[in-house]
Amino acid sequence: MNIKLIFRVLGFLSLVVGIAMLLALIVSLIYGEHDTKAFLFSSGVAAATGGIILLLTKNASRDIGKREGFIIVSLSWIIFSFFGSLPYILSGSIPNFTDAFFETISGFTTTGSSILSDIEALPHGILFWRSLTQWLGGMGIIVLSLAILPVFGIGGMQLFMAEVPGPTPDKISPRIRQTAKTLWIIYLGFTITETLLLWVGGMSFYDAICHSFTTMATGGFSTKQASIGHWDSPFIQYVIVLFMFFAGTNFTLSYIAIKGKFGRVLKDEEFKYYFLFVAGFTILISIGLIFTTSLGIEQAFRDALFQVVSIITTTGFATADYLLWQPILTILIFVLFFFGGSAGSTGGGIKIMRIVILFKNSYYELRRMIHPNAVIPVKFNKHSVDAKIITNVLAFFMLYFVIFGFSTVIFTFIEPDLPSAMGAVATSLGNIGPGLGNVGPAENFAHVAPAGKWFLSFLMLLGRLELFTVLVLFSPTFWKE
Amino acid sequence: MNIKLIFRVLGFLSLVVGIAMLLALIVSLIYGEHDTKAFLFSSGVAAATGGIILLLTKNASRDIGKREGFIIVSLSWIIFSFFGSLPYILSGSIPNFTDAFFETISGFTTTGSSILSDIEALPHGILFWRSLTQWLGGMGIIVLSLAILPVFGIGGMQLFMAEVPGPTPDKISPRIRQTAKTLWIIYLGFTITETLLLWVGGMSFYDAICHSFTTMATGGFSTKQASIGHWDSPFIQYVIVLFMFFAGTNFTLSYIAIKGKFGRVLKDEEFKYYFLFVAGFTILISIGLIFTTSLGIEQAFRDALFQVVSIITTTGFATADYLLWQPILTILIFVLFFFGGSAGSTGGGIKIMRIVILFKNSYYELRRMIHPNAVIPVKFNKHSVDAKIITNVLAFFMLYFVIFGFSTVIFTFIEPDLPSAMGAVATSLGNIGPGLGNVGPAENFAHVAPAGKWFLSFLMLLGRLELFTVLVLFSPTFWKE
Repeated sequence: MNIKLIFRVLGFLSLVVGIAMLLALIVSLIYGEHDTKAFLFSSGVAAATGGIILLLTKNASRDIGKREGFIIVSLSWIIFSFFGSLPYILSGSIPNFTDAFFETISGFTTTGSSILSDIEALPHGILFWRSLTQWLGGMGIIVLSLAILPVFGIGGMQLFMAEVPGPTPDKISPRIRQTAKTLWIIYLGFTITETLLLWVGGMSFYDAICHSFTTMATGGFSTKQASIGHWDSPFIQYVIVLFMFFAGTNFTLSYIAIKGKFGRVLKDEEFKYYFLFVAGFTILISIGLIFTTSLGIEQAFRDALFQVVSIITTTGFATADYLLWQPILTILIFVLFFFGGSAGSTGGGIKIMRIVILFKNSYYELRRMIHPNAVIPVKFNKHSVDAKIITNVLAFFMLYFVIFGFSTVIFTFIEPDLPSAMGAVATSLGNIGPGLGNVGPAENFAHVAPAGKWFLSFLMLLGRLELFTVLVLFSPTFWKE
Repeated sequence: MNIKLIFRVLGFLSLVVGIAMLLALIVSLIYGEHDTKAFLFSSGVAAATGGIILLLTKNASRDIGKREGFIIVSLSWIIFSFFGSLPYILSGSIPNFTDAFFETISGFTTTGSSILSDIEALPHGILFWRSLTQWLGGMGIIVLSLAILPVFGIGGMQLFMAEVPGPTPDKISPRIRQTAKTLWIIYLGFTITETLLLWVGGMSFYDAICHSFTTMATGGFSTKQASIGHWDSPFIQYVIVLFMFFAGTNFTLSYIAIKGKFGRVLKDEEFKYYFLFVAGFTILISIGLIFTTSLGIEQAFRDALFQVVSIITTTGFATADYLLWQPILTILIFVLFFFGGSAGSTGGGIKIMRIVILFKNSYYELRRMIHPNAVIPVKFNKHSVDAKIITNVLAFFMLYFVIFGFSTVIFTFIEPDLPSAMGAVATSLGNIGPGLGNVGPAENFAHVAPAGKWFLSFLMLLGRLELFTVLVLFSPTFWKE
């Protein structure tokens, strides 16, 4: 185990967090609010810690192995969240450390669950930082570091794989730095476009940037207590739906689309199913809303579409409270908690590709029963899916549900109401944001006991790194030899 | 498709049902109650229908293919349930056809959910028949037919595999008839032993037989409204726990034990985990009951052990109402709804072996992440598990949860209370018996709307035949060519 190198990389990442805080510092200076000192100090602490570690580990070997990769990635997210919580605490916005850490890791992991009950009372710099944590976490800060700096030698691939796990990682370029750079450029391009559209649509420029950050990251933090429901503008809501949908699409596919090869995009199986799931659930819920509420057709469609896209992409923005709908419609939304965006998107959850592979395997198994001697492999995008990937998807799925089940059982000690416990666990593990019961879209997580907040924080991290990267650290084999 | 043969086998099985009813007729004659005519007539109808079909299909080819096997087994369970419901209707015990069919398929599939609210008011013959349906369904009436009659030619294996699916069917003998015979002899042996013990313990001989039938089938029908809670005798309760545990054990393993090779039994991995799950949940729930109720230690342990074994084996007997326990203890019981007995036992549900394979695969996947180039197969009983079996288990697991999820959503239209809907679906699919909410152990299914009863009946059949046998009939490939 190359401990010196682990420290070195973590030190380097602390430096990056410190630099990122300077952006929030600028916003704070522009608005001239009381949070300037907090950013100055937080940035200084993060950067200085990083700098000192870098100096002390100058002669570390640059060879990052598989195991170092898992440790670095898991720890880096905890360290970001630690440094990231400093501005909240020092500015007095969230004085309690547990709450500040929860809010920060909920940001970095793009979950978007909040403990704030009066968001608009907070200074602009702080809310900008809150949105920025999601944007950095969405595409991944390690991927960003890989893109902009030549600091990681040959181990970059290990880190990339551990931070962007996915069932079948597709690389835009054989060179990992080029891939990371392309991903971030597309991400940035989408963010700028959305900002301009929201600004044109009537948001302030500040709100437009903040919401573009949290849309493209499928994060869901808003600068308003009423989330997107604050703006009663169909244009703004449709723009956000569109960009949530982009954010939940594989970025490699967006790259192909930008290069003009739309045919390949439309032929992509994961995209096709992603679109079908969104369309299917939107139609079902629209019909339900038309028959059970007094909403007009357009409003019912928009409410259904917005909540469906927001939940399936694991963003978590709200324009309506799905807990006030008919139980069956609420349950349909809860079913979507177990979908998630596409592989290679910023969306969390189980991911469309895994779900489709699982469904196909089940369906093919029926054919295998009829023709037991034929070899019937699962096909995806016209290629046979390797048995290794299927067992990996199986393992992921099983772990996901076991963790969901056992965490719910554990969480009922903290929150005895079963739907609330199920909702809190599912939303944290899927990096969604709102849950059910007393952690629904109109509520927040402030009332959850401190132990519960730490537990959910852990689930968010587990979900963001797609289980294996974190769980592998708890496996005895990992530490052997 | 050899349709003539399908009819022939179904005709033969109708004959077997007619003959089985003669046993209930004898009981009815002994007690001299008003249900005698009902049995005489039902038996006559079933036997005559069977006889006529047999005469009409005399020259059918005796070659049963894979597809014929699936059709025969799926249809046979529906036909049994149809004929089996006649005594209830004709005796006036359950005049409504929907209710009578529900009670019968709940019996044959060994689910044990009941629509009866005053069981003790029914004649002895009817209650004997009710218990007998479970006993016949437990080991499988096709397996019985294979054992006692040389009627099925070379296709016996197809039928056996379709009725006793399991992830890895182990055959006691290379000859399928010998295997079926051995299984039924062990089954009968256990049933006789349990009858004698319950009789000695204070039950009437009649109650002892009926309860032995439903214990060994992991069925759960009782002749008393209060189920086993009717007898306040620790001896009777422990005897039933022991035999439920045997019924949930692989019968091949019992055969090995009877032959004196206890070492092999203790080394069996599925048995080990089965024992550990029972012990673990019993200890957890015992502790919970000791701290949250005024029960003494022995009573708390006995209540915990009985409900845990009853649910994990999918029997469904009750000596306590787990819905009155602390929520966390009820949830632990609900977790057990998704376990099930051992492969090759009469228990339903997902089955211990599948769960262990899934867990192991997930755990091994962590090792595969650390050593990506090593081949790390899942081992079970010291043998590598074939990749085909893993994808089959994956398919089963996925289907099970998708069916559970979607059925719950559908069922909320009939039963809006979510825990009740989840409980009703889970208990039917797992062939358990009692559910949650308004279908808990102290309630019954009488109040469920007719559409709901038919839906649950279908789920019971799906669960009993382990999904594939039935689902394959809905696959387009099945009907091609």
